[in-house]
Amino acid sequence: MSAPEDIRRSVLLKRRPTAELSARDFEIHEDAIPAPAAGEIVTRTIYLSIDPYMRGRLREEQTYAVGIKPGEVMTGETVGEVIASAHPDFAVGDVVVGPRGWQSHCLAEGDKVVKIDRSLGVPLSTYLGVLGMPGATAYTGVTEIIKPKPGETIVVSAASGAVGSVAGQFAKRAGARVVGVAGGPDKCLWVQDSLGFDDCVDHRALDLRAELRAACPHGIDGYFENVGGAVQAAVFDLLNRHARVAMCGMVSQYNMTEFPPGPNLGFVVGKAVLIQGFIVSDNPQRLIDWRRIAAPWVADGSLVYREDIIDGLENAPEALAGLLEGRNFGKMLVRVGHEPT
Amino acid sequence: MSAPEDIRRSVLLKRRPTAELSARDFEIHEDAIPAPAAGEIVTRTIYLSIDPYMRGRLREEQTYAVGIKPGEVMTGETVGEVIASAHPDFAVGDVVVGPRGWQSHCLAEGDKVVKIDRSLGVPLSTYLGVLGMPGATAYTGVTEIIKPKPGETIVVSAASGAVGSVAGQFAKRAGARVVGVAGGPDKCLWVQDSLGFDDCVDHRALDLRAELRAACPHGIDGYFENVGGAVQAAVFDLLNRHARVAMCGMVSQYNMTEFPPGPNLGFVVGKAVLIQGFIVSDNPQRLIDWRRIAAPWVADGSLVYREDIIDGLENAPEALAGLLEGRNFGKMLVRVGHEPT
Repeated sequence: MSAPEDIRRSVLLKRRPTAELSARDFEIHEDAIPAPAAGEIVTRTIYLSIDPYMRGRLREEQTYAVGIKPGEVMTGETVGEVIASAHPDFAVGDVVVGPRGWQSHCLAEGDKVVKIDRSLGVPLSTYLGVLGMPGATAYTGVTEIIKPKPGETIVVSAASGAVGSVAGQFAKRAGARVVGVAGGPDKCLWVQDSLGFDDCVDHRALDLRAELRAACPHGIDGYFENVGGAVQAAVFDLLNRHARVAMCGMVSQYNMTEFPPGPNLGFVVGKAVLIQGFIVSDNPQRLIDWRRIAAPWVADGSLVYREDIIDGLENAPEALAGLLEGRNFGKMLVRVGHEPT
Repeated sequence: MSAPEDIRRSVLLKRRPTAELSARDFEIHEDAIPAPAAGEIVTRTIYLSIDPYMRGRLREEQTYAVGIKPGEVMTGETVGEVIASAHPDFAVGDVVVGPRGWQSHCLAEGDKVVKIDRSLGVPLSTYLGVLGMPGATAYTGVTEIIKPKPGETIVVSAASGAVGSVAGQFAKRAGARVVGVAGGPDKCLWVQDSLGFDDCVDHRALDLRAELRAACPHGIDGYFENVGGAVQAAVFDLLNRHARVAMCGMVSQYNMTEFPPGPNLGFVVGKAVLIQGFIVSDNPQRLIDWRRIAAPWVADGSLVYREDIIDGLENAPEALAGLLEGRNFGKMLVRVGHEPT
């Protein structure tokens, strides 16, 4: 279901969700497709990326980014086709990644988007996942914080997700023993069989701690944290001396209004542990480097990824709600419009 | 009260303390002063260092070091005079730092101790404090983890202690605004007036959070953690984006049998915070570097320190008990024997 040619459809925040985010917290708004001012382009959205960080943008209090207020358009990275350009570097028909908005058509400054080189032969959708911010996030956490050494044990939570699946495969390439944590037998099987992790523990297991201990007989040297909560507690108990923890996200609590207490940090002293948060966009070079490194691996199939694609802009709120509850399986995307022919 | 010339007195652990450590958990043992085997020396103890880490050695479960069992001699670094040597580099009358034991006389491998160059003109006791492991610990946390930049706000807990007093003065030299946290008005006054910190907050204040907020109007960019507990919680709430936390110790909980929960770590993600534990002895070069850097500052009086000296080996248990409750004021030492003339 696509909008008529001259109408732009946008998803607005209607009200701040108080706990579990719901599709009822959003509404569709229609207006005319804008014309680009000097330096701007207008794109027709092909794919919209749905990511856990979006939940944080809906909170009253913000940490590192500008929040979204009720009545404003939801933010999110897209891949789109240029339909109007007032920027010398972009022509109608170019495909770009970066324009932001849960919208059928995005107005963007040309300097803030990247033209996709279609000759590389990788699917356009991968620029939002394995070759996009999620991939670069995995790359950053593994190379700058965890720095896995051959033979070390690295645990990755949300292992079947957009970030975790890349983090684990990348740590494997460094020679580490990689153990995933994922939700349910289907995801765990895929993490082991298709991604090639050495083991994968189901966080819904009756005794998560015992299963994790069995999967990590030599303790844990590095942890790529995407979820928080009970998984974090179980992993922290098994950390070895000089372990490194890349704090990428804690999606298990993004829908909470009050955050529960965390771990007593005595072990950080006694075991000389490093716990480091990071925001991938603090250094734009990371994404550039990662795309250069990983595009050949995507093209030759050696870097495995999985996408969970929902059709229709109007389903973006439901896609985000599902992502926050772990109902997706792979990188969550909304297909807003057809691929260029 | 010194022992007869041929008798060695040692403080043994009698039983593991269950909560608050008490002098009754220790006992004195006497035996003959040993003779050194090849490569060894025997020293007469002048000063014994009393440090918070010693409480951890008394626990059943150990993290990074070998624990002490009931019946064994307590461990601790000393400054002593060589009274017998079977090592070519040491002669009777040399003064050395490093022999370990709560003992009137220590038997040590010569390769594990350092001869003190008395021509530097710094007091012998400083080799256990401002020029010893505590000073090197402060140096490590500030230079390797906090890395203060001019104008940044750095908070140091246990600011009047052996480590905190050096950490804060060193961060001041880097151009930071330094705020201490200490226990009681006397310590706070000394931290501001004698150490030159920009401010010092009393952790016993009725509203610690409000006082800390007032002392740190631009938030906190670096935190040198020595205490944990309520001070840690108050500091973490004020951390700025990209703040660095050097996790040196959490003395407020060393006497506890069960550790309380800690902070929810969501802020580590959202603010890209670094939290790093470290063990100074992991890299012996740190102590060598620090002594070279800081000895001139101690000699010229520009690096201020304070010592809290108790006389008599038999009072070492009471000294440790007091240290764990913050009853000391400055670096805690036991004077076991007279200085060489």
